[in-house]
Amino acid sequence: MLDIDKLSLNIPDTKKPRVVIIGGGFGGINLAQKLECKDFQVVLLDRQNYHGFWPLLYQVATAGLEPDSIAEPLRKMFSSDEFEDFHFRLVKVTGVNPATKTVSTIIGELHYDYLVIATGTKSNYFGNEQVKKNAFPLKQIPHALNLRSQLLQCFEQATMTADPVLRQSLLTFVIVGGGPTGVETAGALAEMRKHILPNDYPGVDFTKMKIYLIEGMDRVLPPMSPESSAKTLKYLQDLDVIVKLNTLVESYDGYVATIKGGEQINAQTLVWAAGVQGALIDGLPAESVERGRILVNPFNQVLGFDDIFAIGDIAFMKTEKWPKGHPGVAQPAIQQGQLLAKNLKRLITNQKLEPFEYFDKGSLAIIGRNRAVADLPKNIHLGGFFAWLTWLFVHIMYLVGFRNKLVVLSNWIYKFFTYENGTRLIIRPFVRKGDRVKRQFINKYETE
Amino acid sequence: MLDIDKLSLNIPDTKKPRVVIIGGGFGGINLAQKLECKDFQVVLLDRQNYHGFWPLLYQVATAGLEPDSIAEPLRKMFSSDEFEDFHFRLVKVTGVNPATKTVSTIIGELHYDYLVIATGTKSNYFGNEQVKKNAFPLKQIPHALNLRSQLLQCFEQATMTADPVLRQSLLTFVIVGGGPTGVETAGALAEMRKHILPNDYPGVDFTKMKIYLIEGMDRVLPPMSPESSAKTLKYLQDLDVIVKLNTLVESYDGYVATIKGGEQINAQTLVWAAGVQGALIDGLPAESVERGRILVNPFNQVLGFDDIFAIGDIAFMKTEKWPKGHPGVAQPAIQQGQLLAKNLKRLITNQKLEPFEYFDKGSLAIIGRNRAVADLPKNIHLGGFFAWLTWLFVHIMYLVGFRNKLVVLSNWIYKFFTYENGTRLIIRPFVRKGDRVKRQFINKYETE
Repeated sequence: MLDIDKLSLNIPDTKKPRVVIIGGGFGGINLAQKLECKDFQVVLLDRQNYHGFWPLLYQVATAGLEPDSIAEPLRKMFSSDEFEDFHFRLVKVTGVNPATKTVSTIIGELHYDYLVIATGTKSNYFGNEQVKKNAFPLKQIPHALNLRSQLLQCFEQATMTADPVLRQSLLTFVIVGGGPTGVETAGALAEMRKHILPNDYPGVDFTKMKIYLIEGMDRVLPPMSPESSAKTLKYLQDLDVIVKLNTLVESYDGYVATIKGGEQINAQTLVWAAGVQGALIDGLPAESVERGRILVNPFNQVLGFDDIFAIGDIAFMKTEKWPKGHPGVAQPAIQQGQLLAKNLKRLITNQKLEPFEYFDKGSLAIIGRNRAVADLPKNIHLGGFFAWLTWLFVHIMYLVGFRNKLVVLSNWIYKFFTYENGTRLIIRPFVRKGDRVKRQFINKYETE
Repeated sequence: MLDIDKLSLNIPDTKKPRVVIIGGGFGGINLAQKLECKDFQVVLLDRQNYHGFWPLLYQVATAGLEPDSIAEPLRKMFSSDEFEDFHFRLVKVTGVNPATKTVSTIIGELHYDYLVIATGTKSNYFGNEQVKKNAFPLKQIPHALNLRSQLLQCFEQATMTADPVLRQSLLTFVIVGGGPTGVETAGALAEMRKHILPNDYPGVDFTKMKIYLIEGMDRVLPPMSPESSAKTLKYLQDLDVIVKLNTLVESYDGYVATIKGGEQINAQTLVWAAGVQGALIDGLPAESVERGRILVNPFNQVLGFDDIFAIGDIAFMKTEKWPKGHPGVAQPAIQQGQLLAKNLKRLITNQKLEPFEYFDKGSLAIIGRNRAVADLPKNIHLGGFFAWLTWLFVHIMYLVGFRNKLVVLSNWIYKFFTYENGTRLIIRPFVRKGDRVKRQFINKYETE
């Protein structure tokens, strides 16, 4: 039992300019890795003690990978000697005060010389509290573990009912949102239905299992090329995923999802992958924020400040080519983090800053075994097996940590040949009365 | 949201004698694997959907292994065609009624022809509710994950306080119980302190970290030979574990552990590995139970019944050689399960039953790198490197599942050469208001 009043951020004063980075995602870690500790003191604040490789999160949810193989402990990433003046603190930031140049946390304030906001996004329920309460989000590792348990538990319960209506609702999975997360989750679930579930649950008729993918726009994977969207739709339909385009979910009470227009779907499980919003921090002036993201100039400086930066998904950099900002994927965050490391060095040596220019390496999505789509530079669109190989290669390559690369690769090879998912344990959170967990105030996984 | 009334066990009637097994531990799975489905219908009931290899649980708690590599989904183990009349149900058994030959669960009753109780043990707090509330148990996978998060969180918090008393209490770990779990946890924690933690937490002075191992009897590993106990004590002391023998913990309020006699230890973390008791089921007559275990004859028949059996830790078979029953380890359970499969076949063919005779293969415990003890048959006692190799070999060999063997072995090899633990994520249960978890009534991880 912890006395909160006795905790403090406890950062030593090393007289170097202090860069405070909020968030250990793609932007934050790429910045921190490139910043040289001989020039700066680097403080990284995050509510989680690891950097997650979120493009593979859906595989944790669908029992394909263990959480530890898609995440790297932040301290491990920064434990070598070159990071001697790097300091990680597991703490939630509650606000920013540009006037005093401090960030506040529940255990005290911290002065910064340069502040970098790299908080990314959180789920967007568009104000629908009922959906928020009943849907399963898929943004963090505990979400993925919880969804994995839920899926498996639905199949267990489907073996334990003679009631056809309940059984159908246990076997119906509604995935809202046709972006990469939704598409990849639907595809993985469809592959499980084909290869694994009928063996594991001989008492269940899996021709009855229904997977809905619901998208508000007129195609799946709206940020990708129309060619890729069309291929993806075909792949999903080949896998018997019921894709509903131009369709909005109006309500979900835990039993019934109601579609705008009136159609109702009985489902015990609704996955919400329909949208994200910036994970904003209190204390920035309203004029720096637009559509839930922080307005930045080409140097990632927040509008109105020269010592506060925002990078990655939370940053809104309007350019001619990207009038709505850069796509919410890893690459812009990585590239902005790397450039900002250089620019901060330039800043303290009074050199001219270099403006950000996004180098679009393309985008990828996987739908199932041998089925993926890729939009590569120069308008090259791949599908099928080659896109699938590209997907596997790129994801292994960008995964942080040699051990993770090895583990994920072995898992995929094993799965390819055996058609088996390794990780089918139902591990629900351990909750008991007078819960010890509740006594921990830091890193408490609140809902978004 | 599930309507409980609409669930039922839903087991088909195949006219064969029905064997109902409660518990998928070592006893239950070995019995189920050997029972032939052409002779019997086999129904396995468990609150978890996996078989756990508990001798390695402490490695999950100390960030050495992922839970999925020490557990095998029960359905996967029984998915081949030979188990065509095998039925697994994820459900908690609430009682037994020998008069009607039924077991009851929250979703209905089930008739048995033969009932096998293989429920194992749960933590024993000897009636101390305060300790039960504040201590960390280590009996199930969620316990181990919770303890892993707790350990890492203590180090995180130790970097975030200037208060020396709080810091010391965050860096003090009290492990109660000098059996294998306690010894192995203490050893693993001491190895982490030596090789991993100083790198990860440069702000913490790990010479201040204290690991207590508290045992009520006059030696550690009381079930093993005095030679092994003495070696283990020395290994622990070499690793700077503070071992207190003949010592009882009287109270623990979450801050302070009070030892009988008055000594007080400030510690944020107290691990309870001090004892187990049988996981009894309601409905058996009082005279069939002694010291929390179920009295059985040499055929594992429960006292007073010829169609109810108990195997493994929950069974109390008094023999001349083992007047207090067999040791609470995997081997007696495995051997009893295997024999019972044969005896049930004999029973339905009116042959004479074979009495159980325990073949003691010896016992093992690991304390740290290159340090283990082994009591082998014929009074051979090994220590050091050879015992360590034996320990590794035996544990890999008995681990269920080819994939698990491979993953665990790779992890150990990786760790041996890099001195690195792979899995240092803090993943606390995801709790939110109106929690979805609480709506799930099956497989809710209650405290023991």
